[in-house]
Amino acid sequence: MKFAEMDSKSLNDYREGLLKRYEDFKSQKLKYDMSRGKPCSEQLDLSMGMMDISDYKSCDGIDCRNYGGLDGLVEAKQLFSEILEANPDEIIIGGNSALNMIYDTIARAMSFGVLGSEIPWGKLPKVKFLCPSPGYDRHFAICEHFGIEMIVVDMKSDGPDMDVVEKLVGEDESIKGIMCVPKYSNPDGITYSDDTVDRLARMKTKAKDFRIFWDNAYVIHHLFGNGDNLKNIMKSCKDSGNEDRVFVYASTSKISFPGSGVASMAASEANVSRIKKNLSVQMIGPDKMNQLRHVRFFKNMQNIEAHMRKHAEILEPKFLAVLDTLNAELSGKEIAWWNKPNGGYFISLNTLDGCAKEVVAMTAEAGVIMTPAGATFPYGNDPRDRNIRISPSLPSVEELEKAMEIFCICIQIASINKLLLKK
Amino acid sequence: MKFAEMDSKSLNDYREGLLKRYEDFKSQKLKYDMSRGKPCSEQLDLSMGMMDISDYKSCDGIDCRNYGGLDGLVEAKQLFSEILEANPDEIIIGGNSALNMIYDTIARAMSFGVLGSEIPWGKLPKVKFLCPSPGYDRHFAICEHFGIEMIVVDMKSDGPDMDVVEKLVGEDESIKGIMCVPKYSNPDGITYSDDTVDRLARMKTKAKDFRIFWDNAYVIHHLFGNGDNLKNIMKSCKDSGNEDRVFVYASTSKISFPGSGVASMAASEANVSRIKKNLSVQMIGPDKMNQLRHVRFFKNMQNIEAHMRKHAEILEPKFLAVLDTLNAELSGKEIAWWNKPNGGYFISLNTLDGCAKEVVAMTAEAGVIMTPAGATFPYGNDPRDRNIRISPSLPSVEELEKAMEIFCICIQIASINKLLLKK
Repeated sequence: MKFAEMDSKSLNDYREGLLKRYEDFKSQKLKYDMSRGKPCSEQLDLSMGMMDISDYKSCDGIDCRNYGGLDGLVEAKQLFSEILEANPDEIIIGGNSALNMIYDTIARAMSFGVLGSEIPWGKLPKVKFLCPSPGYDRHFAICEHFGIEMIVVDMKSDGPDMDVVEKLVGEDESIKGIMCVPKYSNPDGITYSDDTVDRLARMKTKAKDFRIFWDNAYVIHHLFGNGDNLKNIMKSCKDSGNEDRVFVYASTSKISFPGSGVASMAASEANVSRIKKNLSVQMIGPDKMNQLRHVRFFKNMQNIEAHMRKHAEILEPKFLAVLDTLNAELSGKEIAWWNKPNGGYFISLNTLDGCAKEVVAMTAEAGVIMTPAGATFPYGNDPRDRNIRISPSLPSVEELEKAMEIFCICIQIASINKLLLKK
Repeated sequence: MKFAEMDSKSLNDYREGLLKRYEDFKSQKLKYDMSRGKPCSEQLDLSMGMMDISDYKSCDGIDCRNYGGLDGLVEAKQLFSEILEANPDEIIIGGNSALNMIYDTIARAMSFGVLGSEIPWGKLPKVKFLCPSPGYDRHFAICEHFGIEMIVVDMKSDGPDMDVVEKLVGEDESIKGIMCVPKYSNPDGITYSDDTVDRLARMKTKAKDFRIFWDNAYVIHHLFGNGDNLKNIMKSCKDSGNEDRVFVYASTSKISFPGSGVASMAASEANVSRIKKNLSVQMIGPDKMNQLRHVRFFKNMQNIEAHMRKHAEILEPKFLAVLDTLNAELSGKEIAWWNKPNGGYFISLNTLDGCAKEVVAMTAEAGVIMTPAGATFPYGNDPRDRNIRISPSLPSVEELEKAMEIFCICIQIASINKLLLKK
């Protein structure tokens, strides 16, 4: 039954029962961490085979144990060119983190501008980025760190609200970028439609040096069915004559090892050439031994896809446990709305307005740590205080069932508190 | 015999003989690379045992394969605290490159300032660094990249000319830093004296946020005898009440694997705390699996020292081959002066003024690639065109003997050319 249609007495009585269940859970002193999209150890075990490597000679005879290789091994660029659907000449191999490559790209843009900049972004009176929200908190943290003003753009079911995006970038020269997780978006699990990709690629931007930061973190991280298809934005940008517009990022953090994987970016050859000039001052080059481990283990796209199916087999029951509990506890009550993503690492849930912070605080008191409410919005400020990110990967199915039951109890209590105030 | 005391006819005749030897070498179409301080493969073999690791749990139970660990594993900080002679709380573990950590430190200083800065360095009309020269070309490249004006300070036998350093930093507020390789300096192989260290630590600086960049790249890279001792600058800075003045860097690039080693920096706890705040936006954390490999393999300082003696056993004959050839070919002629370092990776040689570029071009034509002349000075500009860096680590002893013979022939020819012009 819809909570909004219940009278005060019924709501009060219902809350009594919920509070009893809540206190019971609290007394169990549970400790579950669902705050980040951390793979579980069974997932990490899948890649241990890559440690069995006996020689470290690259395909072109380089001793990968020694210095050199600014932008990565030939075979690593080949492999990432398949993952990112770009030419090997459009690929730069990085260290262990795509996020670090995004940070570096923005840091360089602030100090030196990007290809086509007349002035380093950091010397402009104001730099703004569009931030489709809810989104990835670490993207927002980088922008905030560099004093980039973040403009919230609503996420729709097929990506950011493109009418708003087109209008803003078309009239404001200080808007220099947009932050996108285009596939299985963090946290909504939305994949941008072909039309959204094309509109981003071809839209007129007032800033000549506008850049799309295309964090394709979940590029092959399917869960259910055949997964979603994402249109190749580099191709769309080329077709629209805007080939320098996009920086694409991905890593093996959630394919092999978080923190010990290989990251990569793709961009037009002109962008790559400019970035490499900067990189030659910044570093000697990323870890080639680790690149070789990855290339020898995965070999090609077909093997990576088979490997990702093993990840999905571990993750699917966890996502289903979350979804089943949400359905069982909350459906029909019209106090929470959530998605069922086809891939990625998150389930995004919206409560009634003004309830998210209270819910996350309550679950924490009962031993279930969720991502802080607000984290999915720029400046940690969810204007409607309703979005909560659920990360099912780390706990076991049994832990998830318990954690989600607590979570649902808290949502119901907070919703009743809210509704009673209005009555 | 001293070349300067020979008459023109004798010099001409002597040159004839040299030119014949030079042409003979040229016809052999040799290809030796002595341009960088690259370890040879026998050195890299010394550390292969670190790959035999079966579990990746840290001492405090962290699964090193997963996310987390912004500033490094407890045991990695412990090991580097021994190498860098600092407390574990003063240590930050980085990725695979100390140079990258230096770049990042300066990039952050430009964008955000350092602890105690009133304004980011990049917003000041002018930032200057003192650059003891000859020095490390990649340090100079970073400064040039960020538009930092480099002021050459002469290197003396006990470190930079401290009278000049003290005078300059005492009167010019725009001087924000000094670039030092304090032990077995690149390229001179000089170790700073205790007095130099103390004067750097206690000198009055006009800039309140002045920093010493202490790139201790060869901290335990001894060659002959017991090696040199370098006074602990962090302690000197503390004793002088300037504990926030110094950033210390080192890595295992020339202990384990160049490009796949572990880098680290040490600084006061206040500095570390500020840097970690920035790092938390920049990255999730460096590769913990690689940290654990290193810690498990090296275990403690005693083992590292034993390991470094194995490196020295490989390198000593190479350095001696270079020194012996220089002695045999050049001594007494007063056309070149060089050092015999107790450690590090380089031998630095000065020709007569105005000969270095010609010598390096001539050796290249005969197939021996040296570090470009001028590279050891800011902006690639050696004002006296006389310094050449010799890197004996990569070629074999036989190759070095040949390469050095060619080098000495070229020095003699260039010197005679020079002397004949004057006559």
